[in-house]
Amino acid sequence: MTTADARTPASKRNARNVPEARNAPENEAGKSIGWHKGYVQGSRPDLQVPVRQVHLTNGKDVTLYDTSGPYTDPATETDVRRGLAPLRENWIIARGDTEEYEGRPARPEDDGLKHTSPRGGLRNLDAVFPGRPRRPRRSRDGRPVTQLAYARRGEITPEMEYVAIRENVAPEVVREEIAAGRAVLPANVNHPEIEPMIIGKRFLVKVNANIGNSAVTSSIEEEVDKMTWATRWGADTVMDLSTGRNIHTTREWVLRNSPVPIGTVPLYQALEKVDGRAEELTWEVYKDTVIEQAEQGVDYMTVHAGVRLPYVPLTARRKTGIVSRGGSIMAAWCLAHHKESFLYEHFEELCEILASYDVTYSLGDGLRPGSIADANDEAQFAELRTLGELNSVAKRFGVQTMIEGPGHVPMHKIKENIDLQQEICEEAPFYTLGPLTTDVAPAYDHITSGIGAAMIAWWGTAMLCYVTPKEHLGLPNRDDVKTGVITYKIAAHAADLAKGHPGAQDWDDALSDARFEFRWEDQFNLALDPDTAREFHDETLPAEPAKTAHFCSMCGPKFCSMKISHDIRREHGEDQAAIEAGMREKSAEFAASGNRVYLPLAD
Amino acid sequence: MTTADARTPASKRNARNVPEARNAPENEAGKSIGWHKGYVQGSRPDLQVPVRQVHLTNGKDVTLYDTSGPYTDPATETDVRRGLAPLRENWIIARGDTEEYEGRPARPEDDGLKHTSPRGGLRNLDAVFPGRPRRPRRSRDGRPVTQLAYARRGEITPEMEYVAIRENVAPEVVREEIAAGRAVLPANVNHPEIEPMIIGKRFLVKVNANIGNSAVTSSIEEEVDKMTWATRWGADTVMDLSTGRNIHTTREWVLRNSPVPIGTVPLYQALEKVDGRAEELTWEVYKDTVIEQAEQGVDYMTVHAGVRLPYVPLTARRKTGIVSRGGSIMAAWCLAHHKESFLYEHFEELCEILASYDVTYSLGDGLRPGSIADANDEAQFAELRTLGELNSVAKRFGVQTMIEGPGHVPMHKIKENIDLQQEICEEAPFYTLGPLTTDVAPAYDHITSGIGAAMIAWWGTAMLCYVTPKEHLGLPNRDDVKTGVITYKIAAHAADLAKGHPGAQDWDDALSDARFEFRWEDQFNLALDPDTAREFHDETLPAEPAKTAHFCSMCGPKFCSMKISHDIRREHGEDQAAIEAGMREKSAEFAASGNRVYLPLAD
Repeated sequence: MTTADARTPASKRNARNVPEARNAPENEAGKSIGWHKGYVQGSRPDLQVPVRQVHLTNGKDVTLYDTSGPYTDPATETDVRRGLAPLRENWIIARGDTEEYEGRPARPEDDGLKHTSPRGGLRNLDAVFPGRPRRPRRSRDGRPVTQLAYARRGEITPEMEYVAIRENVAPEVVREEIAAGRAVLPANVNHPEIEPMIIGKRFLVKVNANIGNSAVTSSIEEEVDKMTWATRWGADTVMDLSTGRNIHTTREWVLRNSPVPIGTVPLYQALEKVDGRAEELTWEVYKDTVIEQAEQGVDYMTVHAGVRLPYVPLTARRKTGIVSRGGSIMAAWCLAHHKESFLYEHFEELCEILASYDVTYSLGDGLRPGSIADANDEAQFAELRTLGELNSVAKRFGVQTMIEGPGHVPMHKIKENIDLQQEICEEAPFYTLGPLTTDVAPAYDHITSGIGAAMIAWWGTAMLCYVTPKEHLGLPNRDDVKTGVITYKIAAHAADLAKGHPGAQDWDDALSDARFEFRWEDQFNLALDPDTAREFHDETLPAEPAKTAHFCSMCGPKFCSMKISHDIRREHGEDQAAIEAGMREKSAEFAASGNRVYLPLAD
Repeated sequence: MTTADARTPASKRNARNVPEARNAPENEAGKSIGWHKGYVQGSRPDLQVPVRQVHLTNGKDVTLYDTSGPYTDPATETDVRRGLAPLRENWIIARGDTEEYEGRPARPEDDGLKHTSPRGGLRNLDAVFPGRPRRPRRSRDGRPVTQLAYARRGEITPEMEYVAIRENVAPEVVREEIAAGRAVLPANVNHPEIEPMIIGKRFLVKVNANIGNSAVTSSIEEEVDKMTWATRWGADTVMDLSTGRNIHTTREWVLRNSPVPIGTVPLYQALEKVDGRAEELTWEVYKDTVIEQAEQGVDYMTVHAGVRLPYVPLTARRKTGIVSRGGSIMAAWCLAHHKESFLYEHFEELCEILASYDVTYSLGDGLRPGSIADANDEAQFAELRTLGELNSVAKRFGVQTMIEGPGHVPMHKIKENIDLQQEICEEAPFYTLGPLTTDVAPAYDHITSGIGAAMIAWWGTAMLCYVTPKEHLGLPNRDDVKTGVITYKIAAHAADLAKGHPGAQDWDDALSDARFEFRWEDQFNLALDPDTAREFHDETLPAEPAKTAHFCSMCGPKFCSMKISHDIRREHGEDQAAIEAGMREKSAEFAASGNRVYLPLAD
């Protein structure tokens, strides 16, 4: 275990992503108190798994899962214009089953610009990252180059070993889960910068954060910043849902700087290419867009192939119709042409393309309910059955696949969703939005959905798509992204605890020990959000001494409940057996004296 | 149904509690759009039940439960120094089973002042509210004057009719639930200002907000303001947990101005009277404090009579010992004297006192778990069994009783709590703190606990005690109180939906209709927090026209999913049957042409 020195000059850090440096004293173990980037060494020199190490004042260490990438490593300098180091490049090349090729030339319309546009925003796309010539890579002979294919062949790839270390399980478990289709490891051969992660119910529950500009607002820099900010707080993957101008360029920036897998909805960009006229969409435009994005390195793509012509009328009786953007686009197309969805019709061809880059399917739930009234209805479950059918097809082509779900679902209807999905989709990973458990709290839908997210994750959902306070109202800003991610990390961890995930409770135990022993600094440093925890504490008790005080502002110095617990132990010794013996003796006396005494059973 | 005119000059309003007046246009029904205080007339002139009426732009009305009291009625002037009108006074007098008496004289130590204190803060307590001479009222002949006693006699009191209208159920249902001990209607004869409410699993899930100054910070005005602020956002009851100076006076102000039942923990004040030395507590000091508070009008009291001597050692092996303040005080007392709890020993005498004022018991869970590690342990359940025993005793004396529960409990251990409580306590209302489903997120414990609160309420908890973002870190300020209340109203409503509470979904449906039809103003006015919903929307799209725009900032004007849903309906008519017929025809063609067609089952 190597640990980066947190006392590196702040100047060397990416200020946007590293928590403020604190001149913390050293603990008995001679380690500076606080949290630091660390790495677990794998079986090869270039396989180092990042962790968040918390050095406690009592000399102990707590090691936590870390998604923040090189940005939180003071020993690494990052440059948003150079992008991150291609960590996986040698692993991909060493497999020898891919080749570089010329690839699809970038076109003005990729960025939503007319061919005739005076400002040819893409005249020199390749210059966006001069450091990395954009010669894309794909399968050498058309056979799948996916982690699923390798797992089925019994190979444990460096990516699999990487996630095994991250999840603290045996590499063979990772291979088995991927081979069985119960887990996915999204890792496009054209996105070598990622730190591999896995999505499956046997592993830690993951969280996705959506970013993306829209026709209405936001900029490229903002989106890249939101991505690094989201991973800083724990986002395991990020989806770029941009719909406005500069889609291609924004995505290139995000991909080259992202330590986590990036997902997209190619349909959004395809629609821009036909000026937002759904009926003008064609398989050719869509296919071209998928290849464009696969060559850039998109790790998973939402494909709404389950929105079929016969299901559209099922939404007519709904309270809120179709609320998925992709779903409504495909529904509009189907009705305009009175034809079956071109995504459904060309699904096998799409599988061949995705398999040659190892792009993972996220089969979209275009008919998810947009209100409590529409939950678990005919339209939703009809689509789910089709997703099950498509899941089998994708597997036949060796494409990794996960299934998207929920939306607005009241608590008593949540379990039916996960149970049905697991049955119909042969336990493929479920990736759910929320669900939102009520419609009445716009501005608080991170909470209405955090409730449903925790429950469905406990019951088996593998990845949760976050919801921010701006849901239904506007585009999330930086604070909204943080609030959404933190809320969903809470839901995910609560689910890990409920599932009895090995070691999940160690984190809670460490923080509770710190709390009971009034180790305030340790409590802050172990918190999901150390900055806010410290800030809230200091609001009431700003003085430094308060950080070591044996009380908090709730009860005050005069009378603190936990202080009493300590006094009890002090007065009556640590020998619990003795205490209990003495107490049971007392109890006996009460019994003798006719008191109603209750001796607790040992259940 | 009478409706207060919302266009009353703002000057006549209590600015602190009434949302900003807006010059909204009138809808077709000629009603000004927005939300307004309304009243439902009961069977007698002085029985008018407040409701929150939302007039929609489409001419419809939505009626919501209202806890905000006269403060949100522009037709009523409130004066914090005069207190609220004694709404129930005539009902109480008319029953003829109570009498006024001299009552206990207020003493300096009631406010934490020494007898010899130079600043005799209480020299003239009666002058705090010159408008109301403080001659307390109690049972004329010692027999219980409780709603439980009346219900058992088959009487439907005005209070019962009041809550029946509020909950939209038959008065007889209210009487039955109270008579059976499955519900409580906290209403001290000395707190005539309250608008009666009921707590029971057959009714809407309720939310309690804690306020209270401490030795460390906060003032009287702040606490009164927090109370009115909490009820403004939906708090159904408020607990005054003050522990610092001026406890008696603070409580007097809060009671005289509170439209909701007020709860306390008498032990806190009793402890102040013996200078915080737990071992110096006596039954006499405690009893004196209970009478002092009962005469003031406290509606329910938390009594930690379940913390018994033999259970204390069971906490020695815990990770976080005893975290309930009342629990730790009693544990310290038991150990100091090596005697059984004086609360347990004198429980029957206490019942007689509470019965003569109709103070409701909230049997405290002094041994609740303070960490995930301690959840559902021997100490917690041993105390619960004793609470079941005490519940039976209280019922024998005609005292209304609810049971306090949870704390920190992981999701998979929550149901065991409510199931065991319902069994052991003969379905007495469960009143739970959270539970917090993980320990790792200080500063976000409104969310870690909101998750557990929604679940346990779905499974039967009748009232939820809120948790604010400051939990474990400091004292909540105004914003924290609002955030805590809103979060818990979400949990409570999500549970009402999951329980299938009659009419609960009407609110969600009305808001979702407004959302789908782009009636932004209606969406804001129906929201749990209209102010924040409007503010978030305007952040991205400030212009007034945007309030009627048929899109939102998520997808932008060019392509909105819900807009498409409308287009689908427009293009294909409202005749759903026709649409479906046509579609099924198409489906048939696909089948004929050998396509895989899936005709959704009608499940």
